[in-house]
Amino acid sequence: MNYNRFFPTSMKAALANDPPGAWVPKTPADCICLHRGYPASSLVPYVEIKCAVNTLIDKEHDLPLHYLGSAQTGVLKEKIRSRLAVRGIVVKDAELLVTSGSSQALDLIARTLLDQTAVVAMEAPTYMEALETFQNYTNQIISVPIDEHGLKVDVLETLLLKRKQDRLPMPRFLYTIPSFHNPSGVTMNPERRHRLLQLASAFDFLIVEDDAYGELSFSEKPIPLKATDPEQRVLHVGSLSKVVAPGMRIGWIAGAHELVFACNWVKKDLDHPFAQATMGTYLQHINLEQHIMQLRNAYRSRRDVLVAALEQFMPEWVKWTIPDGGYFVWLHVPNVDTSLLLEKSLREGVSFVPGKHFFLHPSEGKDYLRLSFSYEEPERMVEGIQKLGELIRLV
Amino acid sequence: MNYNRFFPTSMKAALANDPPGAWVPKTPADCICLHRGYPASSLVPYVEIKCAVNTLIDKEHDLPLHYLGSAQTGVLKEKIRSRLAVRGIVVKDAELLVTSGSSQALDLIARTLLDQTAVVAMEAPTYMEALETFQNYTNQIISVPIDEHGLKVDVLETLLLKRKQDRLPMPRFLYTIPSFHNPSGVTMNPERRHRLLQLASAFDFLIVEDDAYGELSFSEKPIPLKATDPEQRVLHVGSLSKVVAPGMRIGWIAGAHELVFACNWVKKDLDHPFAQATMGTYLQHINLEQHIMQLRNAYRSRRDVLVAALEQFMPEWVKWTIPDGGYFVWLHVPNVDTSLLLEKSLREGVSFVPGKHFFLHPSEGKDYLRLSFSYEEPERMVEGIQKLGELIRLV
Repeated sequence: MNYNRFFPTSMKAALANDPPGAWVPKTPADCICLHRGYPASSLVPYVEIKCAVNTLIDKEHDLPLHYLGSAQTGVLKEKIRSRLAVRGIVVKDAELLVTSGSSQALDLIARTLLDQTAVVAMEAPTYMEALETFQNYTNQIISVPIDEHGLKVDVLETLLLKRKQDRLPMPRFLYTIPSFHNPSGVTMNPERRHRLLQLASAFDFLIVEDDAYGELSFSEKPIPLKATDPEQRVLHVGSLSKVVAPGMRIGWIAGAHELVFACNWVKKDLDHPFAQATMGTYLQHINLEQHIMQLRNAYRSRRDVLVAALEQFMPEWVKWTIPDGGYFVWLHVPNVDTSLLLEKSLREGVSFVPGKHFFLHPSEGKDYLRLSFSYEEPERMVEGIQKLGELIRLV
Repeated sequence: MNYNRFFPTSMKAALANDPPGAWVPKTPADCICLHRGYPASSLVPYVEIKCAVNTLIDKEHDLPLHYLGSAQTGVLKEKIRSRLAVRGIVVKDAELLVTSGSSQALDLIARTLLDQTAVVAMEAPTYMEALETFQNYTNQIISVPIDEHGLKVDVLETLLLKRKQDRLPMPRFLYTIPSFHNPSGVTMNPERRHRLLQLASAFDFLIVEDDAYGELSFSEKPIPLKATDPEQRVLHVGSLSKVVAPGMRIGWIAGAHELVFACNWVKKDLDHPFAQATMGTYLQHINLEQHIMQLRNAYRSRRDVLVAALEQFMPEWVKWTIPDGGYFVWLHVPNVDTSLLLEKSLREGVSFVPGKHFFLHPSEGKDYLRLSFSYEEPERMVEGIQKLGELIRLV
C-alpha cells in the first residue's frame, strides 16, 4: 500500500528534502571521526552521572521515575537559571523551559512560530539540524552570509529593506549561532550584535539565539544576545550537551513568558523527568564553573593541536578559521569538491562533514568542510589531518 | 510586547483550547490521589533500574551518554520486538520506532498525518492527552461513542456513510484504545475489532491503536488490532510506562515502514539514548513475562479492592464498569456535576478526574468520573471511596 495520500501537504514537502542525518558519513571501522560534534569521551563525566543516579534513587526511590519527576527536577531548573544569571541572562521561572536537548527546543520554537506561510532567516552556513528542523515546517527560508565577524548584518539589512519595498513578509525569526558558530567557528562581534537587535526591532522579527557552544570560550567570553534584549525579542536556546553529556538530552529555552508558554503548550509532557532529576542531582554535587574551566582548557589545547596539524600538513592554498571557542574549524579548499574528497578520505579512514550540508543552497558549500577537534584524541587528530592533507595535495 | 502576531493560525487555534494538563486537580497535602494514572510506587522497579544504570555505565562508560547511544540502545529495540511477537505483532526492524513515551508516539503520528484540513475520529470518552495532542494540529475531530463492548462500530459506519454521501472527507485516522480503555476500562470485543478493520479498508482510513494498558489483563488477553492487520492500516502505539516506569519515557510505534519512516523523519534525534540504553539493560536482566504476571496480579487485587469499596460505599444509583485490565474504573453519577463534586472532594482530601475532560464535547461527560486503582495503596483507596460515597449521598 502506498501511504502518500494520507500525508498532508507540509509533510509531503518535508519528505522532498534530504532525510535527517543525511550528512552523517558511513565510517569504516576505526575511522578517525573528525565529523563528530560530540564531546571527547574522556571529558564526559560518566562516573559522576552514575553517582548522581545512585544518589537520586537512594534518596527519592521511584519518585523521579514517574511522569512529573521530583524535587530534583526542580533543582535542575534552578541550577540552569543561576548559571544563566552568571552570563547576564536574568529570567524568571516562567521564562525558562527545560527541554529534551536543544533539538527539542528548536523544534518547539518551530512548531510555535512556523507554518508554510512563515519566513525564517538563517546564517549561511548554519547548523544543519536546525535547517532540517525548520524545513519540516516551512520552505520559505532566507540565508544571510557570514564572515569572520559573524552574521553580515549589513547584508541582512539590505535584504530586509528590499523585502519591505517588495511588500514581502518579514521573517518570523532569524536563527543565529552568534558564539563559536557551527560549522564556521566564528563569533559575531559586539557591534553586529547591537545592530542585529536594532534591526529586529525596526523590522519586527524575533531572534533565536542558539548558544550551544557559548560556554566553551578559549579567551574572551562573548556576551549573549539575550543579555542585552530590552524588547524581549530573543529566544535563547542552550544545552548541557556540549558541557556535560549529549545523551542526557537537557536543553532549554529562555525568553518572553508568552513565547515560552506557547512552547510548553506544544511540548506537554514530552520531556524526561528521570534525566532532569539526574542532572539536577549531578549539578548539585559538582562545581560547574570549575568543570567548564577544565573543558575550556582541554578544548583550547585540542584546537591548538588541530590548527598546528593544519599548518604542518595542509598546502598553503587551503584556508581555515581559528575559532576562539566551541568545537569546530571550518576549512576552505578552493575548487575541491569536498563530497568527492570525503569518499576518498573515508577509504583512508578519516571523516569530516562536507560543507554543502550546512547551506540552504548546497552548492555554496561545495569547497568547504567542517573539522571537529572535540571528539578524537590529539594524536589521532594529527594522524587524520596528515592523511587529509596528503589527499588534498593529490587532488 | 504582545506576541500574538508571530503565531501562525494553527497555533492561535490550539491556544484557544484548554491548556495541557488542565484536568490535573490541585490536590491538598496528603490527598488520596485517585486521579493519578501512575503505576503504584511499590511496583516501580527503581532498585533494578538503578542496577541497570550501574551495569550499563560500568560496561559502556560514556557511550550511552552520547547522541547515538550504544549497543544497549539496540538491545531495547530487540526486546520490544520480541515482546510484540509474543502478542502476535510481528514487525521488522524498520517497522518499529522507539519513542520518548507514547506521548511522543502520538505527537509524531499527528505531525506526520495531520494538518488543519485533516479529520480525526476518536472514541467518546477518550484519553485526554491524545485529544489535546491532536487538537494542536486540527480542529476537525469527530467523536464516536463507546459502550461496554468498546467502540460502537455501527455508529461509526453510519457516520462514515453519511460523510461519504455529503462528500465530506474521511478521517485520516481513527484513534482507539481497544483494550482496557482509558478512562472507561472497557475492552472492544473481537467482532467489533474485526468490523473496525473492515471499515478502515472500505472507507480508506488508518487506525491508531493505543495499547498502553494492553499487557495488564486480569483474565483473557485481548488480541491487538495490529496482530490482525492484513492491509497494514494499524499504527500500534505502546509504552513501558505502565509496566515499568513512566519517567523513563519509553514508547514505540509499530506499523508500515513508510509511516514509521515518516514519523522518524520528524522525530530526528528527539529521543533519549541514555534512557533507551538503560531500559535495554534492565530488560536483559529481568524476566519481563514474570514481571508482567506480578503486575497483573497486583492490579487485579487492587481493582477488586476498589470495586468492593464502591459496592460498600456508593449509593445504588451510582453505576460503574468492572474492567478486565488496566488502571481505571469509570463511574456514572447520574445528574451530579462531577466538576463541582471534585471541589468538595478535594476539601475532603480525595481526588479523581471529572468526566468532562475525556470528551471532545465536555458536557457529555458532566456526570461521569474516572477513578484510578493503580496508584494509591489499597487501604487509602478504601478510605477515599468511603469519603467520596458520603459526599455523593449528600448531593
